[in-house]
Amino acid sequence: MYRPNYGGAPYNSQGRNYQSAYPNQLGSTYSTGPPYNADPQLWQWFTAVDTDRSGSISVTELQAALVNGNWSRFDLDTVKMLMNIFDTDRSGTIGFQEFTGLWKYISDWQGVFRHFDKDRSGTIDGHELAEALSSFGYQLTPTLLTLLEQKYASGPATGFAPSPGISFDRFVRACIVVKTLTEAFQRADTNRDGWVTMNYEEFMKIVLNAP
Amino acid sequence: MYRPNYGGAPYNSQGRNYQSAYPNQLGSTYSTGPPYNADPQLWQWFTAVDTDRSGSISVTELQAALVNGNWSRFDLDTVKMLMNIFDTDRSGTIGFQEFTGLWKYISDWQGVFRHFDKDRSGTIDGHELAEALSSFGYQLTPTLLTLLEQKYASGPATGFAPSPGISFDRFVRACIVVKTLTEAFQRADTNRDGWVTMNYEEFMKIVLNAP
Repeated sequence: MYRPNYGGAPYNSQGRNYQSAYPNQLGSTYSTGPPYNADPQLWQWFTAVDTDRSGSISVTELQAALVNGNWSRFDLDTVKMLMNIFDTDRSGTIGFQEFTGLWKYISDWQGVFRHFDKDRSGTIDGHELAEALSSFGYQLTPTLLTLLEQKYASGPATGFAPSPGISFDRFVRACIVVKTLTEAFQRADTNRDGWVTMNYEEFMKIVLNAP
Repeated sequence: MYRPNYGGAPYNSQGRNYQSAYPNQLGSTYSTGPPYNADPQLWQWFTAVDTDRSGSISVTELQAALVNGNWSRFDLDTVKMLMNIFDTDRSGTIGFQEFTGLWKYISDWQGVFRHFDKDRSGTIDGHELAEALSSFGYQLTPTLLTLLEQKYASGPATGFAPSPGISFDRFVRACIVVKTLTEAFQRADTNRDGWVTMNYEEFMKIVLNAP
């Protein structure tokens, strides 16, 4: 089973969080170098993404920096999902320490994506999505797989052309949505009989908490 | 109560659908003029959006043409939602007749957006969202309203700055998501007691069918 640490806590690494050393007032240059023990390559990427040199990465900066294999930008919803996972201090931005977790997470998912993109098309089709989810432990019915493929594909399927497939960022989001919803359903299914009883408030809370 | 025809069938208008008169093979110019009875202004907009002159609008062309008040592009998910509503012949693209419905729908929603954007900020904040949904007949709890605002805002709220608010396209999507989920819940609540019992398949189908 191929199971990345998706949706979970960010990876911990050594080194202290020096984020507070870089207030917005610093202007166009960093007054200090990278934090102690920082990976120099990661620090270079971090400063490249932090285009306003504020010392932390905003949702706009992150969206501008993240592209799929076909150069399309990540959806705002995927970027917000990543920030929700990795902005552990809830500052609304990503500091360098948080960035190291985010970077590793994206790299891991890129490996997962390449592994399941068997035909090297650069997108995940319905069959590849089914294989990926199955390897994560989610055995969805053909009906749900079709709904999922249609929802996360880059466009509608037409009668004349094959489905455009699912780009990297939407593939990650689709997998995390399935994980989040499945776990929420299982929590609600307290007697484990496969059925849940819930009121409108509980139902809406579960859905709106998914990415 | 302010209730646009949101999420419903496209508006009908007179005139015949001449879409099939413009096959992809026509190349870079339209061989004929607008359909009989067509609004000349709408025809001009349609041909401007149809940048490859195929005679119909693809999801990519529609996304390139739709911008919010702050010039940000519509999310792919909003564009796909609009295509799902207005691509009534399920061709995967929007013909001129379908475009007339889409155009009116967006115009109507722009009116709704302006009506509820009381402070003329160009985005909808949590209070304005509550007012809008209430006027549509949806009385959500503060918990759900907060979740909804966070999910559809253009970025995370930070400790230092106010929430960036909800742009036009994400406002429309938020409203249609609430409508779709609420109606699905009500259909599942067959005895109208406010509680539903469902299995995993039914639950996932409802969620994945929402935009």
